[in-house]
Amino acid sequence: MQKPVILVTNDDGVMAPGIRNLVHFMLELGEVVVVAPDRPQSGMGHAVTLEKPLRLEKISVDGDHMEFSCSGTPVDCVKIAVNKVLHRKPDLLVSGINHGSNSSINVIYSGTMSATIEGAMEGIPSIGFSLLDYRFDADFLPAKKFIQEIARNVLKNGLPSGICLNVNIPAVPEDQIRGVRVCRQAHANWDEEFDHRKDPRGRDYFWLTGRFELHENSNETDEWALATNYISLVPTQFDFTAHQIIPEIKNWKFDV
Amino acid sequence: MQKPVILVTNDDGVMAPGIRNLVHFMLELGEVVVVAPDRPQSGMGHAVTLEKPLRLEKISVDGDHMEFSCSGTPVDCVKIAVNKVLHRKPDLLVSGINHGSNSSINVIYSGTMSATIEGAMEGIPSIGFSLLDYRFDADFLPAKKFIQEIARNVLKNGLPSGICLNVNIPAVPEDQIRGVRVCRQAHANWDEEFDHRKDPRGRDYFWLTGRFELHENSNETDEWALATNYISLVPTQFDFTAHQIIPEIKNWKFDV
Repeated sequence: MQKPVILVTNDDGVMAPGIRNLVHFMLELGEVVVVAPDRPQSGMGHAVTLEKPLRLEKISVDGDHMEFSCSGTPVDCVKIAVNKVLHRKPDLLVSGINHGSNSSINVIYSGTMSATIEGAMEGIPSIGFSLLDYRFDADFLPAKKFIQEIARNVLKNGLPSGICLNVNIPAVPEDQIRGVRVCRQAHANWDEEFDHRKDPRGRDYFWLTGRFELHENSNETDEWALATNYISLVPTQFDFTAHQIIPEIKNWKFDV
Repeated sequence: MQKPVILVTNDDGVMAPGIRNLVHFMLELGEVVVVAPDRPQSGMGHAVTLEKPLRLEKISVDGDHMEFSCSGTPVDCVKIAVNKVLHRKPDLLVSGINHGSNSSINVIYSGTMSATIEGAMEGIPSIGFSLLDYRFDADFLPAKKFIQEIARNVLKNGLPSGICLNVNIPAVPEDQIRGVRVCRQAHANWDEEFDHRKDPRGRDYFWLTGRFELHENSNETDEWALATNYISLVPTQFDFTAHQIIPEIKNWKFDV
């Protein structure tokens, strides 16, 4: 049987330890091709590069599989990988492993998850992986067998059209990970604060900061899963329509 | 009765004709405060600025309402407007008027709609407006009475928690607009192509281009509404969970 072709990307940049680990985990499952940003692209959401052209460089990091760095966003990487590198859809797209959580509403800000959602939009079975540890030297190894087993499941079962997976992994030793829990995105928000400073020329500037605020305790959510040392797996889609509210809004009167 | 406070933003930059028109339409409905990007930010998706600080400049464009330009993305503009300019939630957030469509799956790439969705995430009744005309000198006036009437409805009826509106307007004379149609995001995708060129130094570069491909003919979609000269109004939410598929994926076996 032919080995599956696995496209690997991320948002922390092609040299980040998270993607280096993911590449090694995937090399045991298939033919790996890497197309990832040439620099960190955290918080890019579903940004695409329209106002300037993209660069694509063949690089060699380790091993003899194909690797490319791209000057664009994570979404650009997926588009250019399919069109200019693979010239076909891969059998699987994996994005990450992100240094830090993409659970709950963080999915909307996440470059890791936009690459994953872009994969789903292009009809590719796609999974985003994130570890709940922001540090450069985070330990990705406890997640290895879970990541491989989730990838094997997707290769075997496929995913319904338009649906990808958002997988978050608690930062605990392997023997404390209690398993994989299929769940939903928790209701939460960021309570933003701006750190207001003066530059050496006396001009104001602001750093975005904030506190994550969880609004529920349900054990059906990704936040609950992670807090209790489960890996959270949220099936994720890109239909933004709030279908349930359409009948109510149809009753509005537009006097024009 | 006190006038409602209306926050106006966009992704084409604070000087774009689309936002200048929207400001004038809103001045007839309430107290207007503008916080918008200092340069075009199209295609930014739900990007936020984490790696560098933000600048916020008080500017005066026309009239005596408050206007600010911000060095960040549309999402940054909403966050800093609420926290550092208004010091409260506005009664309404309007984003746009975008030069070009944000219907169907374009919602995910759109800076106009990310600002709108960010508003909803912060509990603000929020509407994104887009005109199907990319040109700088597009005619926004035919849309005026519809935009005002939709805004009046939201001020009067509110919106359910976590839901905002994605409004797209056909680029036709006012007497050809057939009304407002509440609908859903159409199933479609972009068939990407990259325009491959050589720079003067002989290095490759790529421009992202593509064709929009609609996958359905249902008259319940925004694409159908716009093609038949209706204004499309899609209630939009930020729960990415594909709830319908959770039971199926719960049957997967993870052998770890």
